[in-house]
Amino acid sequence: MKTINVALLGAGRMGSEHALNMRSFPGVQTLVVAAPHTPSAEKVADLVGAKHVLSSPEEAIERQDVDAVVIVTPTSTHARLIEHAARSGKAIFCEKPVALDLTETARVLRVVEEKGVLFQIGFQRRFDVGFMAAREAIQQGTLGDLEQFRAVGRDPAPPPIEYLKVSGGIFLDQAIHDFDAARFLVGEVEEVLAWGAVRVNPEIGALGDADTVTTLLKFKNGTLGVIENSRRAVYGYDIRTEVFGSQGKYVIEALPKTPVQHYGTHGIHMDHYHFFMDRFAPAYRAELAAFFRVMQGSSETLPGTFDALESLKVGIAATRSYRENRPVKIMEIQEGVPA
Amino acid sequence: MKTINVALLGAGRMGSEHALNMRSFPGVQTLVVAAPHTPSAEKVADLVGAKHVLSSPEEAIERQDVDAVVIVTPTSTHARLIEHAARSGKAIFCEKPVALDLTETARVLRVVEEKGVLFQIGFQRRFDVGFMAAREAIQQGTLGDLEQFRAVGRDPAPPPIEYLKVSGGIFLDQAIHDFDAARFLVGEVEEVLAWGAVRVNPEIGALGDADTVTTLLKFKNGTLGVIENSRRAVYGYDIRTEVFGSQGKYVIEALPKTPVQHYGTHGIHMDHYHFFMDRFAPAYRAELAAFFRVMQGSSETLPGTFDALESLKVGIAATRSYRENRPVKIMEIQEGVPA
Amino acid sequence: MKTINVALLGAGRMGSEHALNMRSFPGVQTLVVAAPHTPSAEKVADLVGAKHVLSSPEEAIERQDVDAVVIVTPTSTHARLIEHAARSGKAIFCEKPVALDLTETARVLRVVEEKGVLFQIGFQRRFDVGFMAAREAIQQGTLGDLEQFRAVGRDPAPPPIEYLKVSGGIFLDQAIHDFDAARFLVGEVEEVLAWGAVRVNPEIGALGDADTVTTLLKFKNGTLGVIENSRRAVYGYDIRTEVFGSQGKYVIEALPKTPVQHYGTHGIHMDHYHFFMDRFAPAYRAELAAFFRVMQGSSETLPGTFDALESLKVGIAATRSYRENRPVKIMEIQEGVPA
Amino acid sequence: MKTINVALLGAGRMGSEHALNMRSFPGVQTLVVAAPHTPSAEKVADLVGAKHVLSSPEEAIERQDVDAVVIVTPTSTHARLIEHAARSGKAIFCEKPVALDLTETARVLRVVEEKGVLFQIGFQRRFDVGFMAAREAIQQGTLGDLEQFRAVGRDPAPPPIEYLKVSGGIFLDQAIHDFDAARFLVGEVEEVLAWGAVRVNPEIGALGDADTVTTLLKFKNGTLGVIENSRRAVYGYDIRTEVFGSQGKYVIEALPKTPVQHYGTHGIHMDHYHFFMDRFAPAYRAELAAFFRVMQGSSETLPGTFDALESLKVGIAATRSYRENRPVKIMEIQEGVPA
Repeated sequence: MKTINVALLGAGRMGSEHALNMRSFPGVQTLVVAAPHTPSAEKVADLVGAKHVLSSPEEAIERQDVDAVVIVTPTSTHARLIEHAARSGKAIFCEKPVALDLTETARVLRVVEEKGVLFQIGFQRRFDVGFMAAREAIQQGTLGDLEQFRAVGRDPAPPPIEYLKVSGGIFLDQAIHDFDAARFLVGEVEEVLAWGAVRVNPEIGALGDADTVTTLLKFKNGTLGVIENSRRAVYGYDIRTEVFGSQGKYVIEALPKTPVQHYGTHGIHMDHYHFFMDRFAPAYRAELAAFFRVMQGSSETLPGTFDALESLKVGIAATRSYRENRPVKIMEIQEGVPA
Repeated sequence: MKTINVALLGAGRMGSEHALNMRSFPGVQTLVVAAPHTPSAEKVADLVGAKHVLSSPEEAIERQDVDAVVIVTPTSTHARLIEHAARSGKAIFCEKPVALDLTETARVLRVVEEKGVLFQIGFQRRFDVGFMAAREAIQQGTLGDLEQFRAVGRDPAPPPIEYLKVSGGIFLDQAIHDFDAARFLVGEVEEVLAWGAVRVNPEIGALGDADTVTTLLKFKNGTLGVIENSRRAVYGYDIRTEVFGSQGKYVIEALPKTPVQHYGTHGIHMDHYHFFMDRFAPAYRAELAAFFRVMQGSSETLPGTFDALESLKVGIAATRSYRENRPVKIMEIQEGVPA
Repeated sequence: MKTINVALLGAGRMGSEHALNMRSFPGVQTLVVAAPHTPSAEKVADLVGAKHVLSSPEEAIERQDVDAVVIVTPTSTHARLIEHAARSGKAIFCEKPVALDLTETARVLRVVEEKGVLFQIGFQRRFDVGFMAAREAIQQGTLGDLEQFRAVGRDPAPPPIEYLKVSGGIFLDQAIHDFDAARFLVGEVEEVLAWGAVRVNPEIGALGDADTVTTLLKFKNGTLGVIENSRRAVYGYDIRTEVFGSQGKYVIEALPKTPVQHYGTHGIHMDHYHFFMDRFAPAYRAELAAFFRVMQGSSETLPGTFDALESLKVGIAATRSYRENRPVKIMEIQEGVPA
Repeated sequence: MKTINVALLGAGRMGSEHALNMRSFPGVQTLVVAAPHTPSAEKVADLVGAKHVLSSPEEAIERQDVDAVVIVTPTSTHARLIEHAARSGKAIFCEKPVALDLTETARVLRVVEEKGVLFQIGFQRRFDVGFMAAREAIQQGTLGDLEQFRAVGRDPAPPPIEYLKVSGGIFLDQAIHDFDAARFLVGEVEEVLAWGAVRVNPEIGALGDADTVTTLLKFKNGTLGVIENSRRAVYGYDIRTEVFGSQGKYVIEALPKTPVQHYGTHGIHMDHYHFFMDRFAPAYRAELAAFFRVMQGSSETLPGTFDALESLKVGIAATRSYRENRPVKIMEIQEGVPA
């Protein structure tokens, strides 16, 4: 088996996670870890036996012995690095989003397509066994005609305000995973309407952002959907997704984290996933495994440039709907028009 | 214990159900069953040992030996019978709704209040152990500040088209139970926005009605809510209600009807409630029990004229929002203005 | 519908429960309440509108206008009252057990059979929707050949020592419900082996009784079974029953009492049934309903003299096995030989 | 980080599994794969980048550059390879059992202890998050005094008869995992009593083995336990373990494999784990990870020579109890006496 040599760009928490996962894939070798903070890069390189540590991601991309790049740097650098990697002819796995701006996103993804390199965006839910099972059942017609979609997504606590300032807002930063899941399970979205409130932290409101939102969706196939999000759930990560049709429904539930029930004097108690990295650890692993399987010849479908763009559009439309307090059609969302 | 003598008006399926429940209440006696179809009335009277059978509900109401009336006649007769019973000084339990028209409803309920008779509207979910437990926890502050409300309600199959023609539409006929549950658990509603579709039966669309709807709610206390309804769920009656706040959430789930899990070659299988009368049988019993306990001196709170009126207003506002495709504030809904 | 007149013998907690249930059955009237403590009898009579209150159960049994007796008196009186009722030609419903002694039980039940009166013993689990659904599935062959049976039964707290002294021991007092459920679901028992311990209260041990026991069962059809019991579970009433066969298994679980899940900072929490009267309230109602339906002509099967006797034998065999520390065959258990 | 070089002995399904897991551990390198069938060894070596392929496990053990051996060869070779590795001063991870014979097991484990090498036996349940959480809660006293232990373990289908002939019987081959789990959660066993039957395949009976068994356990701390096993469950791998004490109980349940509920016309449906390698995949990974962490300096506790020996004794005692139809004390099980 020919070894795929990878350059890991970024050495934060998600970088280590991806690095350790890659270490277990047959035929995959993390050759370079590139991050501005050298001790972090060295630590990750040591974990996975990477031979080279660089401070410049561009230099890593350009190496002749690198076949693929895995981008887990801050969002603001994604577009630039994707473009650089595409122009260098490397396969690209990038955490979402490409960019928060539609024009820039579309431009970079056109470069990717022109260069014909493999590109995958990190919508990891598409690789969760629950979402995959529901999708497959739907495509086989198990649910008949789809009629309603319903999701809730809540994080345990809001990120720091400094992060929120550059996050693109709750619809682009958090709800976009639900928008992509909706598209994955039901199909393309035609129109959205979002209501929001500031219930968790007034500083979030001061940024023009909301922390508690509900988005109605009308899909092109006539299905009605609704997605609720919140930046804070004291019990941990909350995600539940339902697809309802003329023949039944699928519920993708967050099971207890530990398969233990404790019966005590106050009743029955179970624990709960704390964060998305707990809940989706196997999916994070599976999405990268699929990326490399495709590099090794598998023909499976990955979320690529089209999904990156279309899910972003839904997020921009929801943001606009919330700001302007009106329904917004996805076709309104065009390049060159700021969100 | 002094016996309360009841006139049961109506002898359909719900009439029998109520009659059998009343039979088990200490100090309560069904004295009269009144229904235009004498064999039905006689059958119910026989079931519960009622001494008198009448074809005229008014005659039953007017009897000196009747203390209370339980109204389970067709909706179109409710307002007239409530008014008649109030003017006759009888305690009144009436299935929802009072009427589909706000002006008529308000007028009749003013008569009830002027006459000072006990009045209870049949919002049975308020007597379900799940809804009661959640409400009590919320009122004790267990959830902190409320932030999101979320409900789904689906019936196994649409009623006959003839019924739908006079039902008042999906928001007033079906979703109104969820609107009342929302008010019971969260508080008063300020504004609604409803989207709908015809997915089950085009004949429903031809009536100007929808069969698949989603309603956004903004509560006066700032909570955001969403309710989904459908006229058809092939797996049976679907009801799940969630209240989310700064300190946690309550989920009121429809458990399997039978506490049995079947493990077979295809996995684990459980059954499911078929209809609201299965799921809420104990609540139907409990709501009537509470009515008679209040007659016997208990001071507990019943859903009365105010709840009948306010939940109706939310239903009318949702209907208007769906028809006019815009957010509608509850204060827009005034007497004298048709829905 | 001809009215069935009932004499209720006993006016304790279970007496009231049965009386209120009977009040709701069409065609059934509690005519007499008989109990030595007149105020208790009067209270129950008032609850259900019984016309007569007596202190002598025999006098109640002998009344010409009484059709059936419902016996909820202390265990030590059951055999005598059953015999009296049988000789008076009345239909008999009696809480378990007939007696703690096999010879006496067999003798009395022979009188019942000679007199040809209807007799039902209060094994209420046979009327629980869960047990009924499992039994029906088994009889239809859904599970194939039966192979293993597994049950646990735990009470929230031991009864008072004064009661335990005359209870017949944990196998005859508590486990007998599981023995009967095993017979109901699987078939007749051939041999048992019981191990026990005193873990809850040394006073129970001082009586020669155990409070924590496990009973192995070999059924005549080759199925292996095991039943665990304890006198104390701090979380409430604990009952779970499983039947396993060549084609799958049925699990009859105690669901949470209230269909509510509370998500708080420490995870997910549900409540739990506190006692058998919570868990089996509908079954207590259903068993009596069946008794009267049979009196009214229904041909359904009730647990009668055979089941009372055979389940008792299993309990006696388990007691003997525990005392003598050896396997005991059911055919060893013969009349005339003390347990 | 110094790299630990591993010799993997065996290249079957479990060998690949372990090899892929090891590939993801920082600082761990599979240097050699040794198996008599060279193409299998080469395939695994290729998967994980092992440099050397050998047909002789002894040769692999003896290499100077090998630090640790992972033994996944057929059971009959375990004792010999463990002894060889111990005498060669290597750290040893070995799938259970060491041997089916107590004398041989004890002898080999004495060599391990004399040589002072690290030794871990593959009781992977000790590394399952459910079993670990229950154990920790028990040790913290959450359950008070332990009173009852209860487990069921069923495989989807019996192994081939050829395997069963050399398996040591159902108690040593299958139930031993439950015996070890019982010891892990509750403590040492004093006495056992086993009943068994041949319900799945008469050929199993012809070997003197059973396929359907129940084992009673008396623990030294007074807890009563019971374990049920079967060689066949059509719905897949069935494992549920409960510990009950004076303050509550823990249930370690097999959750559905996929977190999806399907609501269809026949009710609610969920899937189920098919086999132990599905259910315990993370535990298989975690047990090896712990082994290498200890090699890297961690002080956590691993199941070693004592646990290998004591769990084997319980299995031998259960086998003897079943054959001789009598209770057997663990202290009867002595070296030099055949099972």
